[in-house]
Amino acid sequence: MMEQPPVGDILDPDEGFLTQNRAPRSGPPRSWRNWFIGRPLPSADAPHQTVGKAVGLALFAGDALSSVAYAPQETLVVLAAAGTAAFGFTFPIAIAVTILLAIVSISYLQTIHAYPGGGGAYIVARDNLGEIQAQVAGVALLIDYVLLAAVAVSSAAAQIVSAYPSLLPIRVWVAIGLLILILIANLRGVKEAGAVFVVPTYFFLTTTFLAVLIGFVRYVMGNLSVVTNPPPIEMLHGAQPFTLFLLLKAFASGTTALTGIECISNGVTAFKEPRSHNAGITMLWMSAILGILYLGITYLLGIIGAVPSETETVISQLARTIFGNRGILYLSIVAGTTIILVLATNTAFAGFPRLAAIQAADGFLPRQLAYRGSRLVYSRGIIALGAVASLLVFLFQASVTALIPLWAIGVFLSFTLSQIGMARRWWKIGHLAKGVEIREQGSTLRYESGWQTKLIINGFGAVCTAVVTVVFAVAKFRDGAWIIVLILPTIVLALFAIHRHYQELARDLSLEKYGEPPPSRRHRVLLPVSGIHRGSLKALDYALSLSDDVTAVHISIDQQQRLELEEKWKLWGRGIRLVVIESPYRTFIEPFLEYVNEIGDVLQPGDRVTIVVPQLVPKQWWHNLLHTQTAFWLRFMLLNQRGMVITEVPYQAG
Amino acid sequence: MMEQPPVGDILDPDEGFLTQNRAPRSGPPRSWRNWFIGRPLPSADAPHQTVGKAVGLALFAGDALSSVAYAPQETLVVLAAAGTAAFGFTFPIAIAVTILLAIVSISYLQTIHAYPGGGGAYIVARDNLGEIQAQVAGVALLIDYVLLAAVAVSSAAAQIVSAYPSLLPIRVWVAIGLLILILIANLRGVKEAGAVFVVPTYFFLTTTFLAVLIGFVRYVMGNLSVVTNPPPIEMLHGAQPFTLFLLLKAFASGTTALTGIECISNGVTAFKEPRSHNAGITMLWMSAILGILYLGITYLLGIIGAVPSETETVISQLARTIFGNRGILYLSIVAGTTIILVLATNTAFAGFPRLAAIQAADGFLPRQLAYRGSRLVYSRGIIALGAVASLLVFLFQASVTALIPLWAIGVFLSFTLSQIGMARRWWKIGHLAKGVEIREQGSTLRYESGWQTKLIINGFGAVCTAVVTVVFAVAKFRDGAWIIVLILPTIVLALFAIHRHYQELARDLSLEKYGEPPPSRRHRVLLPVSGIHRGSLKALDYALSLSDDVTAVHISIDQQQRLELEEKWKLWGRGIRLVVIESPYRTFIEPFLEYVNEIGDVLQPGDRVTIVVPQLVPKQWWHNLLHTQTAFWLRFMLLNQRGMVITEVPYQAG
Repeated sequence: MMEQPPVGDILDPDEGFLTQNRAPRSGPPRSWRNWFIGRPLPSADAPHQTVGKAVGLALFAGDALSSVAYAPQETLVVLAAAGTAAFGFTFPIAIAVTILLAIVSISYLQTIHAYPGGGGAYIVARDNLGEIQAQVAGVALLIDYVLLAAVAVSSAAAQIVSAYPSLLPIRVWVAIGLLILILIANLRGVKEAGAVFVVPTYFFLTTTFLAVLIGFVRYVMGNLSVVTNPPPIEMLHGAQPFTLFLLLKAFASGTTALTGIECISNGVTAFKEPRSHNAGITMLWMSAILGILYLGITYLLGIIGAVPSETETVISQLARTIFGNRGILYLSIVAGTTIILVLATNTAFAGFPRLAAIQAADGFLPRQLAYRGSRLVYSRGIIALGAVASLLVFLFQASVTALIPLWAIGVFLSFTLSQIGMARRWWKIGHLAKGVEIREQGSTLRYESGWQTKLIINGFGAVCTAVVTVVFAVAKFRDGAWIIVLILPTIVLALFAIHRHYQELARDLSLEKYGEPPPSRRHRVLLPVSGIHRGSLKALDYALSLSDDVTAVHISIDQQQRLELEEKWKLWGRGIRLVVIESPYRTFIEPFLEYVNEIGDVLQPGDRVTIVVPQLVPKQWWHNLLHTQTAFWLRFMLLNQRGMVITEVPYQAG
Repeated sequence: MMEQPPVGDILDPDEGFLTQNRAPRSGPPRSWRNWFIGRPLPSADAPHQTVGKAVGLALFAGDALSSVAYAPQETLVVLAAAGTAAFGFTFPIAIAVTILLAIVSISYLQTIHAYPGGGGAYIVARDNLGEIQAQVAGVALLIDYVLLAAVAVSSAAAQIVSAYPSLLPIRVWVAIGLLILILIANLRGVKEAGAVFVVPTYFFLTTTFLAVLIGFVRYVMGNLSVVTNPPPIEMLHGAQPFTLFLLLKAFASGTTALTGIECISNGVTAFKEPRSHNAGITMLWMSAILGILYLGITYLLGIIGAVPSETETVISQLARTIFGNRGILYLSIVAGTTIILVLATNTAFAGFPRLAAIQAADGFLPRQLAYRGSRLVYSRGIIALGAVASLLVFLFQASVTALIPLWAIGVFLSFTLSQIGMARRWWKIGHLAKGVEIREQGSTLRYESGWQTKLIINGFGAVCTAVVTVVFAVAKFRDGAWIIVLILPTIVLALFAIHRHYQELARDLSLEKYGEPPPSRRHRVLLPVSGIHRGSLKALDYALSLSDDVTAVHISIDQQQRLELEEKWKLWGRGIRLVVIESPYRTFIEPFLEYVNEIGDVLQPGDRVTIVVPQLVPKQWWHNLLHTQTAFWLRFMLLNQRGMVITEVPYQAG
């Protein structure tokens, strides 16, 4: 059937232009979600602020500094198994952990200077090692972020419960409630600057340093008592003899103090110029503060004889012993610690979606993760993190002790890969001819003198973190590390399966070697009809506008209905042939598909088949429940038929 | 664009015929479900067997006879509140219930003769009263079936737990497990004849009569002791004084013995000719057996001093007292009672889907309920009943005592409406001129002498059952009857809303006053494109085969992507105009819908708009997770746009 050309009526002003740009006609879309997460933000609003060292410390240190809330406690939990006498090893372990902290910090200092564009483990591994190592690092980091969120809210809930013991029975829901609040804040989009981070971080630093200081003053003056009314002690797997293995386990728990140390290296671009310099100094400050607080708190815990417990955290015990009561100063310490833990959780919500977006853009995660939502944040990644972290908190009943064994493997694995990547990079740089420049995605390579020292530093860092990774995996294997040992490679395999799909699809759809389609030869139109009414006649009318080669198909289940339909067809069928197929098993879709398949089998190149499906659109959504959704299922089944086009002609009730 | 007529290649043998019937080409559809519920049955297999009186009794009596398992116990539960002294009222209450049983039976005898085609309360009310009364009766019966299923499996589970007390903690799951087994059996289609029903029913009758007989013999010989180790007594709402209200409540519980008495009147067609005669005699036998067993068991329970309990049923107490131990005879009684309760549950699965199908065919329930599934049974109705009954069993923790107050209102309401309908019918018959015949859907009306007596019998039945309905609703109101008093009218209103929808739709789609559509004037085709690849070019090719008035629309989120697309379009766009719409909020569907709406607003009669959507069909279902389902959402949103046709052009990967 010939379509008439437009006869003078200009339906829209684009006519005649080959390409026309149109501005959007209206404001931001309205939705119930706006009330919840705020009105949509246009793409042009993306922030480009940079910060100085003091604000930068507040922005990035939450994750690292919050470690003092759980690392000493988890060391004590392990040692408790061998009796309180073993608590004496806490401080030596803390010294070993602090040395490791220094090594890792110096290693990362080099990364910060080499990657002024931001050098997370994923990017360093991708640029210097290879796809597999990069994806392993990426998955390790994603797991790390999930566990950071789970551990930090669980620890925050534990602090709250220490101050308000009546909340103990609902501790899990306190943790999940905190997670949901942080999730919503991140869906709205947290401005990564200003008072939101500065005030709580420096509040935490002030109160914690004050507590440590007063503690030491009272200790030196000899009037720091032991903790009164200690809570019931908590042990992992009951009493055990003191062994080297137990010591290694305690050390492994202590190494969780290092989590978050890499944050600044990811976020170098957030600093004012000279940004590598500023970022580097901030990181050294952060490490120094962390080291001092960690050692100080651990030492004081030994003095007051704090015990690890699920009902009161050691920080709470320390605070009430130092200040002598549960007054305002006590509450400030607990509040400061809780807030810094919430900021640490927030770090996970900042890091996970960005990393997932980079991996998605590289084609290793579902592409949807790379699109920004209405508030310019990666909403899907944020929701995914919130869902998985909530599940973990629920499954592990918000127990930091239960979650810790799953955690630090991912952290140290990504440290190791990052350091190996850096070492590899120095090796490459050392073997470049002078004046040659190699540009990579994340940084520029040119010869540098002194590369040997840097190679040794990163190489030593790699060896240390690799050893810790193995120690952690072995020492904590039975306590939960096995879960990560199983899951991490599985996820890496899944990521490569996703990558293969995208690659194959791109190849299949590529226009290279694309030939013009064969000229159109015959256009068959099939029209399933169950009854003759205005809706089916509208579809028939449309079908006839496509081709004069139309076949109506009726699947007959009821003899009476079929005779009525045949009668009506004589009157209304406009001379079009009607094929009636008996369906003895009272199914509709299967006989129709069989018929369509028969036609599909004899298709010639250039033949087209269009299936025109009348589709009722009811006035109320619930009316859909009163009708078999045949058109929906037909579409679902027919989409897999090669060369068939499905057209739905809607007819509205009313 | 002109479609070429078929050029000599006959694609299928239907060409040239206006109407052509085709037999199905293959056998029954295969599916994983076949393993579960059996292979599909062709429509021609519908059974047309009839049965005699003995088998008929087995087929229909399960529901009624199983009442002896719970009616005496529930009477005792109510009386227990006033102390065990009140148990003396059990037997007088049983006599009153038996008198009511006789009245209702004689009333229904008349229905059986008047409706040889089957006269359930719904049909009698529909034919003789009106739409509202019919739907009230229908809803009352549907609720009745749901509660029958819930009560009978709960009571069956209670019997099993009495014999095997270790199952007490999982009683709810025993009940739900039984429900699921009966559900599956009904999805397969239970042949309503043969040993499946006869053997268990007569096993139950034999063992129960034997127990009652031996019980009386031992009583007369003076060696029937009281029950040893009675279980802990159960009371409703703690101790209460003995009042008339309590007596009415106990009577109301006793009336549950009448449930199921109407079954035979529904199933007259299942009997051999003369079917009304055979069905009538079977019903009288059933009532007599029920009356004798009910009175006998109630009397013996009083003698042995049985107490109502959630841990051991009174039937179990009676059986072990009569037989003196928990031996084989004891187990036979409990097993027989359990099996008859399972058969009663099965009655609900036979009745509910059939009644729902009749109501659906009348347009008061979703039409899908009127279609038979692959095994020739109304699968959707069966599944609906199973789901709602399971939910009830779970919510009421399989407690018969908790479920009973919800039950008998529906039963007696349908009895009442049925009797009123019959009385009305006799009145009409009495006022017909001789020789005049009126055919109704369910029966034929012609003058009968003696109509006055019949009117009085049914009228008296109606008054009695109406009084019981009110007594039940008032006495049990606070115990749960209020739920039914609220829900029943709500469901009736919903049914009329459904009916209104179907009527309005039929009117909207009617071909009366249907004019030919205006001649086709202009066919605009819109083609959303996100990128240029083989898939989108296939869609472009198809779009050009529909009309030469094609507009490609690109929603631009990313500036870079848009420039690439515009470049490629110059090469591959076949001169078709491309409209680019900026989407500052990174949404796709909203700006496109806005554009479509603008076009829709200026449509002239006879203008068509087709939206051609390229749709990726991946090789593996899980690949769908890796792509935004834009086409799906677009279809969903566009279907509501008046006058737009949606065409999906699938492109396959690989």
